[in-house]
Amino acid sequence: MKIIVIGATGRVGSTVVSKLAKDSDMEIYAGARHPEKIPESPNVTPFRIDLYDTKDDIKEALPEAGRLIFAAGSGGKDLLQVDLNGAVKVMKAAEEKGLLRFIMLSSKGSLTPDLFSGKNRSPLANYLIAKYYADEWLMNNTHLQYTILQPTALVDKPGSGKVTLGDYTTNENSIENVAEVLIGLAEHNASIGEVIEMSTGNEPIPDAINHLT
Amino acid sequence: MKIIVIGATGRVGSTVVSKLAKDSDMEIYAGARHPEKIPESPNVTPFRIDLYDTKDDIKEALPEAGRLIFAAGSGGKDLLQVDLNGAVKVMKAAEEKGLLRFIMLSSKGSLTPDLFSGKNRSPLANYLIAKYYADEWLMNNTHLQYTILQPTALVDKPGSGKVTLGDYTTNENSIENVAEVLIGLAEHNASIGEVIEMSTGNEPIPDAINHLT
Repeated sequence: MKIIVIGATGRVGSTVVSKLAKDSDMEIYAGARHPEKIPESPNVTPFRIDLYDTKDDIKEALPEAGRLIFAAGSGGKDLLQVDLNGAVKVMKAAEEKGLLRFIMLSSKGSLTPDLFSGKNRSPLANYLIAKYYADEWLMNNTHLQYTILQPTALVDKPGSGKVTLGDYTTNENSIENVAEVLIGLAEHNASIGEVIEMSTGNEPIPDAINHLT
Repeated sequence: MKIIVIGATGRVGSTVVSKLAKDSDMEIYAGARHPEKIPESPNVTPFRIDLYDTKDDIKEALPEAGRLIFAAGSGGKDLLQVDLNGAVKVMKAAEEKGLLRFIMLSSKGSLTPDLFSGKNRSPLANYLIAKYYADEWLMNNTHLQYTILQPTALVDKPGSGKVTLGDYTTNENSIENVAEVLIGLAEHNASIGEVIEMSTGNEPIPDAINHLT
């Protein structure tokens, strides 16, 4: 299976790539602004992608593949250019290249506008606004077979391998668990067109993915 | 004619309100975060509207009227909250209230993504991204009878009263001209569903508006 990972040097993206690399059936195209930082692996092809580029340049950078995991983000530093418009340019480029399956790493609350407005708005309001318009674009303005994953806060803990999908039972997610769920979503088609809540929970990840049908 | 102006204390909005106020047939609802700054006039009703509020609070703040001119902006200070999400919340609220006609003050280039990407991107790239997603929302995700006005740079010069609509013949617009064109667009229905370029030019504003059919 050929799969693209965008944001391959990020906290989540790098974990996705190293987990995918363990499966020799996988042909992984790992995209980042600094692809030289991507660890070498026989089935990983790093490529340079800059989300500030034009959509056409991004299209040229994108390899041919059937699936894509979008895990890029600016860490709050450039939400309009990277998290919003960069994401949308990748969607447009992917669609023009005939790529179908698009897995978006989003966030809890990204589609709940009342969380990012009003007096008691989230401290992450600006981030959530950027994710909102990216997620809405994916759902409304493309024909991509999308899945949007909305985890709660990401933490640098070892992955328990157990999660809740489709609901929230805790307030955190280990990055390892999130990476594993992104891969599971990309490998299965049950979640096409779905927005999936996620937190650390009690169900082993493969079971939780299978129960998404 | 009942008309709402959002951003009524801004450079363009305040000029729109004072021009509208000269026409005694107009019933003007002038919305701003600080409505106490709006000059008194017999046919102007100031009201408080805060674009950081939730959509429902914005809906409650909106008066009943058939037409709305959106001229609010954060001056680059809070593009995600005000220029993008604030604008979209007003669209949603207006639509839910049954308001139909929505005139959006946008900007040259707001719908030309290559201007805000790549190495030679505009110094206004972030602003243009915010306007892009607001304008796209208005066109794709609402049933409002919109007109999007895309003037070149706004300057504080006296209005010549002469413009080019539907094309660019100069690189500037007096704020007075822009205000007058916004009013002209709101008064006529010829530009419904249109995106209108604008610059200072050679045609008297009423003629230019009439030629939009």
